[in-house]
Amino acid sequence: MFFLSPGLVAVICAFILWIFDRKRRETQARAEARPRVEEDLKDSTDLQQVEEDADDVEEPEENVEHIPFIHTRYSEKEMVKRSQEFYELLNKRRSIRFISNEQVPMEVIDNVIKAAGTAPSGAHTEPWTFVVVKDPAVKHQIREVIEEEEEINYMRRMGHRWVADLRKLRTNWIKDYLDDAPVLILIFKQVHGFTAKGKKKVHYYNEISVSIACGILLAALQNAGLVTVTTTPLNCGPRLRALLGRPAHEKLLMLLPVGYPSKEATVPHFTRKSLDQIMVTV
Amino acid sequence: MFFLSPGLVAVICAFILWIFDRKRRETQARAEARPRVEEDLKDSTDLQQVEEDADDVEEPEENVEHIPFIHTRYSEKEMVKRSQEFYELLNKRRSIRFISNEQVPMEVIDNVIKAAGTAPSGAHTEPWTFVVVKDPAVKHQIREVIEEEEEINYMRRMGHRWVADLRKLRTNWIKDYLDDAPVLILIFKQVHGFTAKGKKKVHYYNEISVSIACGILLAALQNAGLVTVTTTPLNCGPRLRALLGRPAHEKLLMLLPVGYPSKEATVPHFTRKSLDQIMVTV
Repeated sequence: MFFLSPGLVAVICAFILWIFDRKRRETQARAEARPRVEEDLKDSTDLQQVEEDADDVEEPEENVEHIPFIHTRYSEKEMVKRSQEFYELLNKRRSIRFISNEQVPMEVIDNVIKAAGTAPSGAHTEPWTFVVVKDPAVKHQIREVIEEEEEINYMRRMGHRWVADLRKLRTNWIKDYLDDAPVLILIFKQVHGFTAKGKKKVHYYNEISVSIACGILLAALQNAGLVTVTTTPLNCGPRLRALLGRPAHEKLLMLLPVGYPSKEATVPHFTRKSLDQIMVTV
Repeated sequence: MFFLSPGLVAVICAFILWIFDRKRRETQARAEARPRVEEDLKDSTDLQQVEEDADDVEEPEENVEHIPFIHTRYSEKEMVKRSQEFYELLNKRRSIRFISNEQVPMEVIDNVIKAAGTAPSGAHTEPWTFVVVKDPAVKHQIREVIEEEEEINYMRRMGHRWVADLRKLRTNWIKDYLDDAPVLILIFKQVHGFTAKGKKKVHYYNEISVSIACGILLAALQNAGLVTVTTTPLNCGPRLRALLGRPAHEKLLMLLPVGYPSKEATVPHFTRKSLDQIMVTV
């Protein structure tokens, strides 16, 4: 048997509690620092319910008719030329964060979104909604939401590593382009849809499908001579969804500010990986 | 002053450790329960290790130089014309499951993959690998893996609802196109990369980035006059990764059989949503 003064007991307990609390805060910080494709864009309502209710979806009523496919065939020489020119066009695309406030023709915006809407989707569900914001007051409200959340992201949620990686690209939480760009396109993925009778209809691979549509949208914007930057506003999904009055089954995936580059627009001077760094032939 | 037996001290310590450990396990369980988009495409090796090692990633060495952006500006009339023509070109794209065994020019395949490689990516990580399979024996092995897994998917994993939805499109687990198509492109997402010193480098938003690249790839193929069908072989990722000798940090996202349509190629007779069904203007 040995003796412990109350003072010594208090010191030991305090030490144990301190270790415990530090460990807890570390775990939490790691969890918050994790960049997640989904988490940050997650809404209060989540996928759980959709999955549980999947059996409520109606049976398809009909067997879709199949028709011959009409194909446009080019000569090999033409194919090489077309593919080379398309690569050269897209290779000029850069993410532009300095956008002029000059207006853009709305017919072009319609066409690029129609092009995005030709993307394939799981079981042809077309699970996308493109919200085109032109109203300066709404653009400014969007900016306020994003800058508020982004400041918190940079300060607390992202972790010093991610912030350091982005600092290279001089990204920060002041987003002038959200006021400046004449058009903001907010792309929502529909995590489920509805049948004619109002029942839930599962949207397989909705995030991949909508991201593919965004890839086509970026190509269409570049082809039309407009610039943008692909942004995924961290933790802003629910507030922006509410601001724009979109339903709960739609979740924000991306936001593209669209316009012409401003006169002083600069880009980071980096290169792309070469073909042999991204392609393997078997 | 009061007495504590060594036994009592041991009991108190054990209790504190038990509370601490329960808390830790709870946090872990919560993290694992989260629904994840790529769950079904997940490999046996998972993200856990990447996250644990995130602190090993090097600090960026340099502040990237910024240079003026050179923009190609078209007249408004040209912009409308270009965007209209691009939409019309892409609107002819269909998912084609009947592919001719005729060879395609490999220079075109190089160019479409170079175009895909111009996609934006989180913090410019370019987290993609395109594996181009031409070898008939390897194509056949891929077909065997996919048909084996797909039969199980259709029979057991997918649920009768999904199977019914796909039956409308006459999809099933016999995939002739995997032998027929002269080229299979397997697209892998790199869940992390490596720094020059061989340390792990986090790839933010890798799935969204690679899906965007696939969207550009689909546009490039259509522009070049080739056809494909966007497939996501369920549960085949680990086996195909092993077959192709890809490293553990690469996960299969999509497989595109590429070629010309066969003479008898048909497509389901469906329409796309109209612009006012996919676009909202504010």
